[in-house]
Amino acid sequence: MGYELSVADLRDLATGAALLGTGGGGDPLIGRLLVEQAMADGCRVRVIAPDELDDDQLVISSAMMGAPTVVLEKIPNGYEAVQSLQRLESHLGRTADAVIPMECGGLNSMVPLIVAARADVPVVDGDGMGRAFPELQMETFGVYGISASPLAITDEHGYSAIIDTDADNHRMEWFARGLTIRMGGSAHIAEYPMTGAEVKRTAIAGTLSLALLLGRTLREAKENHTDPFQALTDALVDTPYRYGRVLFGGKVVDVQRGIIDGFTAGRALIESFDRSQTMEIEFRNENMIARVDGRVVAIVPDLITLLDADTAMPITTDAVRYGLRVRVFGIATPDIMRTPAALDTFGPAAFGLTEPWQPLETIGR
Amino acid sequence: MGYELSVADLRDLATGAALLGTGGGGDPLIGRLLVEQAMADGCRVRVIAPDELDDDQLVISSAMMGAPTVVLEKIPNGYEAVQSLQRLESHLGRTADAVIPMECGGLNSMVPLIVAARADVPVVDGDGMGRAFPELQMETFGVYGISASPLAITDEHGYSAIIDTDADNHRMEWFARGLTIRMGGSAHIAEYPMTGAEVKRTAIAGTLSLALLLGRTLREAKENHTDPFQALTDALVDTPYRYGRVLFGGKVVDVQRGIIDGFTAGRALIESFDRSQTMEIEFRNENMIARVDGRVVAIVPDLITLLDADTAMPITTDAVRYGLRVRVFGIATPDIMRTPAALDTFGPAAFGLTEPWQPLETIGR
Repeated sequence: MGYELSVADLRDLATGAALLGTGGGGDPLIGRLLVEQAMADGCRVRVIAPDELDDDQLVISSAMMGAPTVVLEKIPNGYEAVQSLQRLESHLGRTADAVIPMECGGLNSMVPLIVAARADVPVVDGDGMGRAFPELQMETFGVYGISASPLAITDEHGYSAIIDTDADNHRMEWFARGLTIRMGGSAHIAEYPMTGAEVKRTAIAGTLSLALLLGRTLREAKENHTDPFQALTDALVDTPYRYGRVLFGGKVVDVQRGIIDGFTAGRALIESFDRSQTMEIEFRNENMIARVDGRVVAIVPDLITLLDADTAMPITTDAVRYGLRVRVFGIATPDIMRTPAALDTFGPAAFGLTEPWQPLETIGR
Repeated sequence: MGYELSVADLRDLATGAALLGTGGGGDPLIGRLLVEQAMADGCRVRVIAPDELDDDQLVISSAMMGAPTVVLEKIPNGYEAVQSLQRLESHLGRTADAVIPMECGGLNSMVPLIVAARADVPVVDGDGMGRAFPELQMETFGVYGISASPLAITDEHGYSAIIDTDADNHRMEWFARGLTIRMGGSAHIAEYPMTGAEVKRTAIAGTLSLALLLGRTLREAKENHTDPFQALTDALVDTPYRYGRVLFGGKVVDVQRGIIDGFTAGRALIESFDRSQTMEIEFRNENMIARVDGRVVAIVPDLITLLDADTAMPITTDAVRYGLRVRVFGIATPDIMRTPAALDTFGPAAFGLTEPWQPLETIGR
């Protein structure tokens, strides 16, 4: 079940993670280069399935926190995230047996790999978001009873805090976000310390391999001159996500975007190639809802990603601009992300949307 | 040298601490009631001089953090500050042998007494500010090389953070202030863990006894129908502060006040009783500078306090209002607060004032 990532894998993984980032999570590029650097230094990235963990092993979630726009301006050196892990280990009086991604989308697909490589521990094939989300209480770990506390947060100077909010993960987000802003808009965190048994119960399994698969699918479609969008749909069938399809195609005709409360928030308008319809996408770091002429066609937590209409490369929220020709791709979420408790935590209402959640595979049908 | 505080002492201490609060630091009343409650529960408040500490004993500074205006609205129960101490002790793996006030003015004159009483440790007769100041790097502890790190900060829910910024106490203020704001505008902190030897080297000694003396002086002047202002001047001669006098008397004719970045900031105008002169006082939680018709008559770190013209009771920044008849009392600071390093940290420039510091006892003479 376990396997070791190669340098070539990292490119596919970055592509897949950008797709699963649903427009947010930050460009995986910076993270990929830092993993490559670690590999060049002789470090290895070993991937293990949740089932390979012993029940009493200690697993810690690793991530960057902050607005993707800021992360692009304040580039990490690869050691901050390791330091964050070490601070939490020191606080707990115990070293981690493995790290697990907080989210499988965007830059945070790579950060745990840097940590795993540098700290010489395996990375778990799974995560707590199954995509990218803007806030750290939006993790299945918390949905199913794990506390984010204690959380370590560090900045580029090595300054740090250990935050404890008991079982209140919303409060943790509030405090950690406040420090992230005061740390200059991005920071590194180590959070949700848990046992192997807890990982098996609460993590979304297989998402690192999923990102790798989706990235590889896009690369091979390009190499083989086949339809990348159909290839994605085909590849998803045998994954826990099962279903994905092109929701819309057209040209970006308007983008509103700003930094609000530390998030990259706004909306994009896409006019169909035949100019007969318009899709509006609202984002808060990630794409949250897609409407065609006012009718919802995809809604969070299901995934909505803009892909370049020609290359099928994922386009982040930060990179969306007037004139881009895109196809909007939707992906259904696995069952663990669709329970009432999960939807309470990261469903539409959690983002201030009044529309009810509807499964992508049946919406409007 | 050591002595035990009585309930009666607390009233004098509160009066003296309000005076040393120089308009800020929060009303000591709430704190006094919490110390009285602890005493009623059988707890004792033992005061020891810095010299009574063993060189290798652990001393921790205890305080509330936040805007006085908010503290008045979010009243503590007396256990939050103890919890903050305990969090830091737990982090250090060692219990404190004594607590020391962060500041001797305002509410924070009382908070360490609550902690000392409940934790059954003595409180050191001294502090790190020699008055009240708005920011936590403004302590002689830091001026003379002690790090505020690690610092524990807790809210009323028991949620907490342990912050570490190495030797950068300005950064500590920045992070802790950010969390204080997200904790609702006030929080409890335990900070500047240090040895007995370090206390002896860096603390402003005798300030708890000073506050007690000044409060007792005002009470006795009232009981004996003598001039309270002259009594204060006389009492100060034999203290490390040596010098104090009435700087101005008149009626408050204008007050501008707001909450800016978590501080109560603004200015007050006082017209002399004969209407011939006007004093302007600028405050940022505490009174920072007093000018009479544009001429500086007192400037931080020397103390500037408004006293009721009739009762000589101290008036906090929050309570200053149009029509109050006041006398403005200035007090010189001890030498440890007047070194170049000290003035760099909490002299005029630290508050954005362009005027140079001048000793109160010689200013304008």
